[in-house]
Amino acid sequence: MKTQETLYLGIDGGGSKCRVLLTDDKENRLASGIAGPANPNQGLDLAINSILDATQQALEQARLPAGYIDQLIVGIGLAGVNLPKYRLMLEQWDHPFKQMHITTDLHIACLGAHGGQDGAVIITGTGSCGMVQVNGTQIELGGHGFSVGDQGSGAWLGIKAVKLCLQSLDGLMPHSGLVPRLLELTQCNNAQQLAERMANLAPAGYARLAPLVLECAEAGDENALGIVRAGADYLNRLAYKLMSHQPPRLSMIGGLAQKIQPWLDADIRTLIQPAIQPPEIGAIHFAQQQV
Amino acid sequence: MKTQETLYLGIDGGGSKCRVLLTDDKENRLASGIAGPANPNQGLDLAINSILDATQQALEQARLPAGYIDQLIVGIGLAGVNLPKYRLMLEQWDHPFKQMHITTDLHIACLGAHGGQDGAVIITGTGSCGMVQVNGTQIELGGHGFSVGDQGSGAWLGIKAVKLCLQSLDGLMPHSGLVPRLLELTQCNNAQQLAERMANLAPAGYARLAPLVLECAEAGDENALGIVRAGADYLNRLAYKLMSHQPPRLSMIGGLAQKIQPWLDADIRTLIQPAIQPPEIGAIHFAQQQV
Repeated sequence: MKTQETLYLGIDGGGSKCRVLLTDDKENRLASGIAGPANPNQGLDLAINSILDATQQALEQARLPAGYIDQLIVGIGLAGVNLPKYRLMLEQWDHPFKQMHITTDLHIACLGAHGGQDGAVIITGTGSCGMVQVNGTQIELGGHGFSVGDQGSGAWLGIKAVKLCLQSLDGLMPHSGLVPRLLELTQCNNAQQLAERMANLAPAGYARLAPLVLECAEAGDENALGIVRAGADYLNRLAYKLMSHQPPRLSMIGGLAQKIQPWLDADIRTLIQPAIQPPEIGAIHFAQQQV
Repeated sequence: MKTQETLYLGIDGGGSKCRVLLTDDKENRLASGIAGPANPNQGLDLAINSILDATQQALEQARLPAGYIDQLIVGIGLAGVNLPKYRLMLEQWDHPFKQMHITTDLHIACLGAHGGQDGAVIITGTGSCGMVQVNGTQIELGGHGFSVGDQGSGAWLGIKAVKLCLQSLDGLMPHSGLVPRLLELTQCNNAQQLAERMANLAPAGYARLAPLVLECAEAGDENALGIVRAGADYLNRLAYKLMSHQPPRLSMIGGLAQKIQPWLDADIRTLIQPAIQPPEIGAIHFAQQQV
């Protein structure tokens, strides 16, 4: 490799992991790295440590000296930077890169899914959100956070199941197989224990219940069906709204994307196409578009 | 007053206020006191300070010496003591009273509402819950806390309105008058501000929106109607379940009780009777039943 060649680093910084990908200027993969959370709302120091840790891994893997970091043109997509407070925190970081271009995790996912071209994307994993990019315009929908949004996400399916089971155990909703299965999974014997153990958890604590809810719905459990259909109804409305901007493609990514798709409207299902590239490459597209 | 006469103190310890009532053994009111929060899940020291503060006020008002505290037979109803952890904290308190008998805030509200006799009660204020006491059996329903329960409460109506407005601002739900009214009340201009300001609030932060939701529903706003009807549906089911135990009376108390009643089923509305006594007297009934 030529010394001082300009390289690109794409960073996908999420709430649980930070992934980086190092490429040359033709997007050829040179190396990758992975580290801990890089969500600025969990603390800027933690995010910076994760970013630098993953970057160092990639440089080592590419057999480049650590000092090469000042030659990297970086695109970084982070959850939370749609909020001015967190964006400003990142912008004020005296970073060691040649350049750093900041956008949202949703934006780099959308760019990656469509190979840097226009398109729409729905992310549904622990949380949920959607984005459409057409003719230079970007519209982000949903993603308002677990307490007041994130409908149709894994955490949403999970907390809906807890609420429903509590009502069922109180005799206010019909019983179904979901109830004993959820008690078993959470190692609870009654409503009081369930309320005590499952109150005020982080989103991931509810999202771990989502596979059970989907499994029960697939088996025809009426309570689980009600929850999954309500989640799918939100994702349908989100998809129709994104498609109203006439993007050339629609992708759906995230941990719940495969499992929830069979519950969506047929009109939407037929539109969904695979993501072409991962978000880290989307981040590199973003950096290249800014340079 | 005879020296060393046995007096009763009823304590209603809630999440925002602690009310005490001092009576003689015929339940004749001698004095009262009011202090800060006495919910053990907000810290035992705070709860104890509030209890002792309000008690001291009552003794002073009755012109009794502070040392008279060791002659008081106390009944105390506290939110949270249905959970063993908080009940144990209270029981381990080396209290200065002659006797202290602990139960839930819901139980003393029920005893007060029905003059110490059997009956059922629904509390709907910031949170919601129900209880029925018949022939020595007490059943508590709901009250599982805001994150996984409290349907039909003020906080629940409020957060439902925030969620709905965010979807409406995203173009995923029909617009209605509720949306601009809520933005005005919360001093927000758009979905991003609303999500940022109204995420992860304490229940009281959402409950302050409930009057607006009810007002819009009364004016026929379709979005507000959907929320209020869903809340009333839960309270109907709670009431029917409580009545299935055939209590002689049903009362509904709490800050939202009057406003939500017109939305309940006619069958339920006709059953609701006024509370006979306040929870503090219910606490004294409870103490007398234990002595």
